[in-house]
Amino acid sequence: MSISMHSASVPVFVRMLGNLLHWLDKAEANAQSRKFDAGVLLSTRLAPDMLPLTRQVQIACDTAKFAVARLAGVESPKFEDSETSIAELRERIRKTLDYVQSVPPAQIDGTEGKDVTVPRRDGTMTFTGEVYLKHYALPNFYFHATTAYALLRHNGVDLGKVDYLGALK
Amino acid sequence: MSISMHSASVPVFVRMLGNLLHWLDKAEANAQSRKFDAGVLLSTRLAPDMLPLTRQVQIACDTAKFAVARLAGVESPKFEDSETSIAELRERIRKTLDYVQSVPPAQIDGTEGKDVTVPRRDGTMTFTGEVYLKHYALPNFYFHATTAYALLRHNGVDLGKVDYLGALK
Repeated sequence: MSISMHSASVPVFVRMLGNLLHWLDKAEANAQSRKFDAGVLLSTRLAPDMLPLTRQVQIACDTAKFAVARLAGVESPKFEDSETSIAELRERIRKTLDYVQSVPPAQIDGTEGKDVTVPRRDGTMTFTGEVYLKHYALPNFYFHATTAYALLRHNGVDLGKVDYLGALK
Repeated sequence: MSISMHSASVPVFVRMLGNLLHWLDKAEANAQSRKFDAGVLLSTRLAPDMLPLTRQVQIACDTAKFAVARLAGVESPKFEDSETSIAELRERIRKTLDYVQSVPPAQIDGTEGKDVTVPRRDGTMTFTGEVYLKHYALPNFYFHATTAYALLRHNGVDLGKVDYLGALK
């Protein structure tokens, strides 16, 4: 009686990445109605020494991608960080969604005790799969997704908690 | 082979609430070194129609408190939303930490299939414990914790990813 490692990871990424697609749709519609190029949002930052919107989206995607690949023990696809428009960010999110859903659940289930090693500035760090998912991958993922949301809100995009969480039935 | 409901919830709340205490310490130290009253941070917002720092911290605490109480099927303690200083917010976080760690893990384990009902503006909504935790409580918790972090960063507090995630060994 518990949550499987696949169930604790992939559906969470899929849901929030889908929400992120929707925030970008609303950002574009908002820019259009306020008559500015939505592309200017991409370089906005919440502080001069924080990363801009484009990087927040790219890193949210990569956090999901690497979590799935590392838990499953497979090589992750390489996505260039070359996006220069909201349309391209949307494509990056879609590629990530396709990838995280392409890995068979059975390859992720049962990895809670497995060693997962991640590169760090000063070497590497090794966690169990459970600690990696709970205290590294998921917080990092939510950090970048929420910061993307906060950037859009800060710049006047009309988003609310329902957009953040996605439809709940 | 999987993650128990207690393990997927309480240690996550405990870790991030502890990090939040540390961000508030840094916020106070930063205000002192820049010679302004740290209390002015409490009413800052990322957008005029977003909640201020005080509410972000209170709601992060309540999200953790309610998640634990609802999963365990117990009445949660009531904390008044009366904090007017960083010291009082710290106290609110500490009370929340004490509470979420006071509920026996066995009362939370095994609740993944249990019905959890939450009040909504337009009535109530019922989820399984697993869906409630993964797609409602945890995203809400990360939303408010990350927004608190973003507010501090936006206002020049010297925080980085290591502060966000907490020490990883």
